[in-house]
Amino acid sequence: MDDAHSTAGSYVAPGQEFTRDTNYITTRITRDGADGYPVEAGRYRLVAARACPWANRTIIVRRLLGLEDAISLGLPGPTHDARSWTFDLDPGGRDPVLGIERIQEAYFARFPDYPRGITVPAIVDVPTGQVVTNDYAQITLDLSSEWREHHREGAPDLYPEHLREEIDTVNRRVFTEVNNGVYRCGFAGSQEAYEKAYDRLWTALDWLEERLTHQRYLVGDTITEADVRLFTTLVRFDPVYHGHFKCNRNKLSEMPALWGYARDLFQTPGFGDTIDFEQIKQHYYVVHTDLNPTQIVPLGPDLSGWTTPHGREALGGRPFGDGTPPGPVREGERVDPEHTPLR
Amino acid sequence: MDDAHSTAGSYVAPGQEFTRDTNYITTRITRDGADGYPVEAGRYRLVAARACPWANRTIIVRRLLGLEDAISLGLPGPTHDARSWTFDLDPGGRDPVLGIERIQEAYFARFPDYPRGITVPAIVDVPTGQVVTNDYAQITLDLSSEWREHHREGAPDLYPEHLREEIDTVNRRVFTEVNNGVYRCGFAGSQEAYEKAYDRLWTALDWLEERLTHQRYLVGDTITEADVRLFTTLVRFDPVYHGHFKCNRNKLSEMPALWGYARDLFQTPGFGDTIDFEQIKQHYYVVHTDLNPTQIVPLGPDLSGWTTPHGREALGGRPFGDGTPPGPVREGERVDPEHTPLR
Repeated sequence: MDDAHSTAGSYVAPGQEFTRDTNYITTRITRDGADGYPVEAGRYRLVAARACPWANRTIIVRRLLGLEDAISLGLPGPTHDARSWTFDLDPGGRDPVLGIERIQEAYFARFPDYPRGITVPAIVDVPTGQVVTNDYAQITLDLSSEWREHHREGAPDLYPEHLREEIDTVNRRVFTEVNNGVYRCGFAGSQEAYEKAYDRLWTALDWLEERLTHQRYLVGDTITEADVRLFTTLVRFDPVYHGHFKCNRNKLSEMPALWGYARDLFQTPGFGDTIDFEQIKQHYYVVHTDLNPTQIVPLGPDLSGWTTPHGREALGGRPFGDGTPPGPVREGERVDPEHTPLR
Repeated sequence: MDDAHSTAGSYVAPGQEFTRDTNYITTRITRDGADGYPVEAGRYRLVAARACPWANRTIIVRRLLGLEDAISLGLPGPTHDARSWTFDLDPGGRDPVLGIERIQEAYFARFPDYPRGITVPAIVDVPTGQVVTNDYAQITLDLSSEWREHHREGAPDLYPEHLREEIDTVNRRVFTEVNNGVYRCGFAGSQEAYEKAYDRLWTALDWLEERLTHQRYLVGDTITEADVRLFTTLVRFDPVYHGHFKCNRNKLSEMPALWGYARDLFQTPGFGDTIDFEQIKQHYYVVHTDLNPTQIVPLGPDLSGWTTPHGREALGGRPFGDGTPPGPVREGERVDPEHTPLR
């Protein structure tokens, strides 16, 4: 397997369907410190590659909630070898806080024989240099609930109590059919497995297209965790999944509601400003040598459409509800302006 | 190299730019029989795989001119190995007229040590079983000029004297920048070679988009050889070149004039009714194992747009001038209805 986001990509054995390893380090950071890791500002470092859709969720949520001062951010580069993500973009190739070259060092610091995928996102306990958790599905929920006292003023409630059931239901379908569905297409080990995966994916995208024709956001009338999770797949769709993973019935930009929805979020502070299209393309096209042995990275698609008017305001809804958008991106966390159409 | 259309695909050595072998068998079939092969109805067989854009030109021109009774048609299947095209779709895997399994047999019948690519289109002298010519650029011109007495009533003049200079000029640029330009992208041996090729291609496509915004056809106000040559690349653009060859700044369907122009031709008898989208995709995705080692063939793109109204009549022009469109496709030469959106 590859993402949530581990080692060099490989599609599965001929005739097989891709299945994601869902065993993660499930230690949680909580207010009560039940697992030995209490919420504490300045103690933890989130390691999240911009390229990776699962890590991208955490970068978005951290920024929407204003947790930049409470939890620092380490950013591995987009490409990696069989030993997984490295801090090759940092001076000297080392994370300036953790002092390590590879995130696997933090995994081995906690579990010397760690047998599973070395993945991002991962949260590292800075004093010990040990990974606390790489359980990406729980991480964002805990940022919303357990870290509440460190949220910025005006932070949105991305996982409100009264909508959790609906959010969970939507998230389950989006995860199996879309977030993971694109990988099931790309890493299919046979024509038959690919075709089944393709049909599942487009069935789900047609459902989302219909749902988002009539409502601005996936659940309720403000942005929630459900939107974050769908967005990180949609933003990668035309640059990567459409061609590289053969998810090519249509481009995202040919699905009016989904394309409007994706642009609406992209233009919302906290979403598009975390997106590095160049790193995204570099990651998939360079790492998956089984799919792209030349490692040549496409120059397309034209990204200028992302900043065009989307007209989604007409559907009502307020992105931040009674809250406010996050302020400017922190110095040192800004996406290279050459890698984004945002100006 | 691969197409015009020879052996198993391979991209060029790292760091190199793709260059097409342009040495063909240049023997001509002429009225005066100067090369030993006079025009003669029933004597020759055109071997042309539907998958191949260079062969596709000859299938279109033969049909537009109504040469079906004068020159028979052999149709190799879409995929092949290092020994090139085979008649695997025919009963017993043999061409019913030539009695051979592989077109290379007709090459070796003429030149026992033939050293260059075994390509389609090829015209075979049926009595001797020898290839006369595989010089695809000359073949269609000769069908227009040398075979005139066998044209159907109402056949268009695809290469009219007074427009030849302009047609030749357009054809030169379309050949180097578009027909061959997509291959230069797909078979680039380095990121740098790919990026140069991509820029060349899109410069040319922008030029064509501009030119075709104001005129219905490439040269003059009827269909000509120039349209045939551009069409066979455009029709393959979204199904193959966009993803497989990384020609992905835009889809063809995102270029309003080119997309209207391509649909106009597609809906003109003699063009779209020669197109087998399934064979086209099979060919590229299965044969080019250097680019697509899984050999999985994408299910997309959605082809339903090809039959939508194009509105190009508003630009004036008459596809067949004072002539008429060709009649229905001959029995035995029809594209599998499952492989085309034409109904």
